[in-house]
Amino acid sequence: MRFLILFLILLPIILMAQNNTRPRALGIEIGVISPGKLNSITDVSGVSVGHTTLKKGDSILTGITAILPHSGNLFQNKVPAAVFTGNGFGKLAGTTQIMELGNLETPIVLTNTLSVPAAMQGLIQYTLNEPGNSNVRSVNAVVGETNDGYLNDIRGMHISPNDVLTAIKSATHTNIEEGNVGAGTGTVAFGFKGGIGTSSRKLPENLGGYTVGVIVQTNFGGVLQINGVPVGKELGKFDFSNQLINKVDGSCMIIVATDAPMDARNLERLAKRAFLGLGKTGGIASNGSGDYVIAFSTNEALRVPNNPKERTLKQEVIINDATSPLFMAAIEATEEAIINSLFAAETVKGKNGTISKIPLEKVIEILKKYNGIKK
Amino acid sequence: MRFLILFLILLPIILMAQNNTRPRALGIEIGVISPGKLNSITDVSGVSVGHTTLKKGDSILTGITAILPHSGNLFQNKVPAAVFTGNGFGKLAGTTQIMELGNLETPIVLTNTLSVPAAMQGLIQYTLNEPGNSNVRSVNAVVGETNDGYLNDIRGMHISPNDVLTAIKSATHTNIEEGNVGAGTGTVAFGFKGGIGTSSRKLPENLGGYTVGVIVQTNFGGVLQINGVPVGKELGKFDFSNQLINKVDGSCMIIVATDAPMDARNLERLAKRAFLGLGKTGGIASNGSGDYVIAFSTNEALRVPNNPKERTLKQEVIINDATSPLFMAAIEATEEAIINSLFAAETVKGKNGTISKIPLEKVIEILKKYNGIKK
Amino acid sequence: MRFLILFLILLPIILMAQNNTRPRALGIEIGVISPGKLNSITDVSGVSVGHTTLKKGDSILTGITAILPHSGNLFQNKVPAAVFTGNGFGKLAGTTQIMELGNLETPIVLTNTLSVPAAMQGLIQYTLNEPGNSNVRSVNAVVGETNDGYLNDIRGMHISPNDVLTAIKSATHTNIEEGNVGAGTGTVAFGFKGGIGTSSRKLPENLGGYTVGVIVQTNFGGVLQINGVPVGKELGKFDFSNQLINKVDGSCMIIVATDAPMDARNLERLAKRAFLGLGKTGGIASNGSGDYVIAFSTNEALRVPNNPKERTLKQEVIINDATSPLFMAAIEATEEAIINSLFAAETVKGKNGTISKIPLEKVIEILKKYNGIKK
Amino acid sequence: MRFLILFLILLPIILMAQNNTRPRALGIEIGVISPGKLNSITDVSGVSVGHTTLKKGDSILTGITAILPHSGNLFQNKVPAAVFTGNGFGKLAGTTQIMELGNLETPIVLTNTLSVPAAMQGLIQYTLNEPGNSNVRSVNAVVGETNDGYLNDIRGMHISPNDVLTAIKSATHTNIEEGNVGAGTGTVAFGFKGGIGTSSRKLPENLGGYTVGVIVQTNFGGVLQINGVPVGKELGKFDFSNQLINKVDGSCMIIVATDAPMDARNLERLAKRAFLGLGKTGGIASNGSGDYVIAFSTNEALRVPNNPKERTLKQEVIINDATSPLFMAAIEATEEAIINSLFAAETVKGKNGTISKIPLEKVIEILKKYNGIKK
Repeated sequence: MRFLILFLILLPIILMAQNNTRPRALGIEIGVISPGKLNSITDVSGVSVGHTTLKKGDSILTGITAILPHSGNLFQNKVPAAVFTGNGFGKLAGTTQIMELGNLETPIVLTNTLSVPAAMQGLIQYTLNEPGNSNVRSVNAVVGETNDGYLNDIRGMHISPNDVLTAIKSATHTNIEEGNVGAGTGTVAFGFKGGIGTSSRKLPENLGGYTVGVIVQTNFGGVLQINGVPVGKELGKFDFSNQLINKVDGSCMIIVATDAPMDARNLERLAKRAFLGLGKTGGIASNGSGDYVIAFSTNEALRVPNNPKERTLKQEVIINDATSPLFMAAIEATEEAIINSLFAAETVKGKNGTISKIPLEKVIEILKKYNGIKK
Repeated sequence: MRFLILFLILLPIILMAQNNTRPRALGIEIGVISPGKLNSITDVSGVSVGHTTLKKGDSILTGITAILPHSGNLFQNKVPAAVFTGNGFGKLAGTTQIMELGNLETPIVLTNTLSVPAAMQGLIQYTLNEPGNSNVRSVNAVVGETNDGYLNDIRGMHISPNDVLTAIKSATHTNIEEGNVGAGTGTVAFGFKGGIGTSSRKLPENLGGYTVGVIVQTNFGGVLQINGVPVGKELGKFDFSNQLINKVDGSCMIIVATDAPMDARNLERLAKRAFLGLGKTGGIASNGSGDYVIAFSTNEALRVPNNPKERTLKQEVIINDATSPLFMAAIEATEEAIINSLFAAETVKGKNGTISKIPLEKVIEILKKYNGIKK
Repeated sequence: MRFLILFLILLPIILMAQNNTRPRALGIEIGVISPGKLNSITDVSGVSVGHTTLKKGDSILTGITAILPHSGNLFQNKVPAAVFTGNGFGKLAGTTQIMELGNLETPIVLTNTLSVPAAMQGLIQYTLNEPGNSNVRSVNAVVGETNDGYLNDIRGMHISPNDVLTAIKSATHTNIEEGNVGAGTGTVAFGFKGGIGTSSRKLPENLGGYTVGVIVQTNFGGVLQINGVPVGKELGKFDFSNQLINKVDGSCMIIVATDAPMDARNLERLAKRAFLGLGKTGGIASNGSGDYVIAFSTNEALRVPNNPKERTLKQEVIINDATSPLFMAAIEATEEAIINSLFAAETVKGKNGTISKIPLEKVIEILKKYNGIKK
Repeated sequence: MRFLILFLILLPIILMAQNNTRPRALGIEIGVISPGKLNSITDVSGVSVGHTTLKKGDSILTGITAILPHSGNLFQNKVPAAVFTGNGFGKLAGTTQIMELGNLETPIVLTNTLSVPAAMQGLIQYTLNEPGNSNVRSVNAVVGETNDGYLNDIRGMHISPNDVLTAIKSATHTNIEEGNVGAGTGTVAFGFKGGIGTSSRKLPENLGGYTVGVIVQTNFGGVLQINGVPVGKELGKFDFSNQLINKVDGSCMIIVATDAPMDARNLERLAKRAFLGLGKTGGIASNGSGDYVIAFSTNEALRVPNNPKERTLKQEVIINDATSPLFMAAIEATEEAIINSLFAAETVKGKNGTISKIPLEKVIEILKKYNGIKK
């Protein structure tokens, strides 16, 4: 029995460890801070992630990814949150209320550009139907998107509100699928197949011991750089070079979670740092890109009750002076999450053509040439 | 024949003029600048407005109001636009892209809080199906809302995407219905029945001769002030007084149109002035209010083609120094549009009770006491 | 002895009460919330204000007004703060750091446009020389301004850093001079002599019992409205009318203080409401106006130590839901502070002509006509 | 004679070329776009830069760097401009007016934190005294800073207004000194001596042929990365490692110039991309850092006259769709300018100790190990 429990506890770690194609497992060590146990946003206590993947024939390649800050009733126990807009060519719903009130009252859902309304509908229904929410008349549904219209029949709007419920129900606190899954099913990054990626950092105890986790939906361009190595340049395939075949209306959605007790103001600063992580992968936040970062804190002492009885709230927040290590962690985890999405993604044939996975052998060769890989 | 043409030209003016209950017709002259012919947002050349009103029994009281900057294909000929957030407790969709790119590519649609996804869906479908848009894969649907959940069965989400199409089709360049119509069907303002209101200002030729038009969806609180007269105070009915029965999660959506050649930066400044107009009616932008202003220019020389062939655009824009009269016009037109919405609205019984129209006789009495009415 | 103490406690109230020309003493009752004891920003516990007035001959008419959030070492015990920009044609120094860190580490100093550097210099010297600051190498000097260049020889830059020290030293917690004093010595508002004005509101206990105080430096235009009465319109003297002689490059600096435990995010919202108060006086935030609001909280539990020993700070903050009455208070106090500045100001001859005080008798006549005055 | 002219034209290029220690000359080729002729902000037509360096004994190590968008009267012929705040712990003066009006009316001056007022004073005097400015009463002096208080006796405030005039007078359109010069005299970056650095990119003709130039004042931390190579990690010297001796209150001022006809809205987007360039050098925008970007366009057709006679301005602006290559150029030029500042800086002993130049031989060794250098 004991062994069984131990086994169940260790299972996700084992599963992650088995994933030999994750860059870090291959010897690509991004940054100077250590990842959390799973090197995943789910290392942040309470956070769970679920995917609904839609793959039908050669033209429906899309999905839903849902990120839950905690497993309770989010509307009744909101979490501090903030948004940073890197480049606002995108349809992220729910931004102004997060910025005004400094909190998040629904899971964050990612999908494709034209399915934002369907996903919002699902998220609102989910919230209205949660036990305890029978009097709720206002829901700030937070839905981000990237445009998978090259591979996916985006105009067909194949996502249904129900797909959101499925994704939320399937949310797990352990290992997350990466690559061609959920909202990353049909995305393209740096001319290669993009998708979902995740990573985390755990600060040493003398810097607070906090965890920062990131999940991304990659669908953008630039000049790919992996662990500092100019892979895009070496491959001769980058924005404004001649070999970049697909100029998609890109986007990169970035979600940053932390257990550090950050209030909304400092979460906005944290979110801004994730943009630097995107830059380090060679992203340029092009005109047609919707690059947004949503950051939230899972710290229980900062929960915002929906109908508070008191006029004031006692809380313990991190001070400005202690934020810098968290900033560094957000940069590193974002960079690695983006790279993870590329390594996990697989070649796929879609509506308008085939998008290949990064040429792994060639990439590793380049990484070796530039000493960007340990093995 | 000539007479017929003349008649047709004058018809809208006649119709508006017949509306004897509009405050200005009653002798309430807000501000120092003259209104346009119709004292309506449709005085701004090109702008049209359509409503879909849903009234079923005592519990479905909601609708759609659509504002079209011009009658062509908006996606292919975008207009410069900007957003100002007075208080961001609201679900206005499409803000970040307007702010990033400085333009608007769909009609602006207003509805209730929980029907934003349905309205977005309708707006996206409308855009995808417009002739010439068969390759469009990305649409920034702009949908604002206020919460009509006191009178309307908002959790029932009775708006369908099709209601948006109906509203757009019915859009008129002439007289606009005000009060309990479209997105104003179920709203409440200052404890009285609110709704849709509109107004305009036309600058004298020596200040440019431009027109500024405003349309509002009123659903907010404060201490009602009409043409400077402390009506709410006199009635003893205002926020935090004992007689304000209904504390709704309010909001005020404000749309400002102008034919002045303003670029996005100056449109953002114009939008901010509308917030002052809201303040002059006694609005306080309370915590639970979603007070947003969207401003756009209909100036044809500033249209942004969707797939421009040139790298640069020749344009003629208004300079900073010439903006102040337009600012004043936006303040006045917003103030009057809000008051117009109150005068046009009618008492209605809804899901959670009855909301009365402002007590007109009593209000006029108060206005007379304070010399706020000419007749 | 007891009587002496009682007398000393009551003295400021007596002095204020003696000021029969304050609008409220004349029967002009703006808003629905009661003012604090002094109807002054100094009603907010801890706040003091000092002026240095420079009047030399007919051309030097300027000064310094210093607002101190508390009487201790502000750099070592910063206060939460925020800035809202109504219209940014101005030179307010220190904004980005307040917005980033959410706090204020110097007194707020007001002066004329071209003397901002001299005032900053004085503020930095003051801070460097405060006991306990011998290691300080970075000071975010917050200096606001309006342009008094019509009455004052502004190009002469007559303010010296020392004038700031004098103003700070003379700061008082009791009655504040208004009108042609300190930074208001040479300002012009609505075509009349403007200056310094102050007002406050105290919420009833059931809404928290908090105090909100405002001080303004008025130097802007529009269509003057006093307690809702269209004074500017009646006088035929307003922006873009023919009788407005002086088109100054205006501005209105507004400082809002509260003892409510508001953090920086909610203080920014509070600051935004003061802009509505400006609107209610007929201000239009014209292109050439620098209309800024700085809001801070004096709540002792929210002080930010300069070199905190802990990574986190325990604090008790007001929740979003409890902010609306404070918003209303900020609007009312701002409106009244602006009107107070006009009533206190006196006719003065300056470098480029004479600017008259508002025509008091005529104004009172108009107020009576519109029932805007009780006596 | 012809040869003389040719020689004079080529001189700056020759001088730059002689600077063998610039990274690019050493074989460090950052990015994929070619630099302009001088690889300097002065490649942008019209831009000139001047330095005043203050070095006295071991404790005065500071200065002024002035950047002039064009050589005419800037106040009378303003240039479109924008500001992006990466991290706002800094004292950059002039931000709100640039953002509101979208233009710049003075040279940009860089100095140390506590000398901002002195530099503003100099800049105002310069502007007031320019021929044609005798009626000017309002000047938006733009002064940025970083904190050189480790090496420099910053509390001594040794900069005088006159130093600004000297820097402006000495401004050159050709080769710019880098490293320990002007405002970079006493700065520290990544634990090494920082300073002034510059770089540029010239787009190929098919992407518009525009030039983007950047100048930086480096005084910040993180984990140094040169051309993608983890130099800081290899040296074991970075923020939160044990070997980073000096924790300065850092900052990085970044100025971006372009001849592309970008209006203020797109310049703000351009400015934001420079922040990504900072990220690529390993900067983390730490809590104590004042990381600001000012971007302006030198395009003559976009000049804003001070007292325009017309209500509108005819202009030709770049469209959104054509901005991405400029974004990429800004990222690359910023990254290279920062690295250039480090290579040009020299070891210096100052008030609180000695700060060493990057260990060049060791760094090149590391660069070779990671294939980050061509030679």
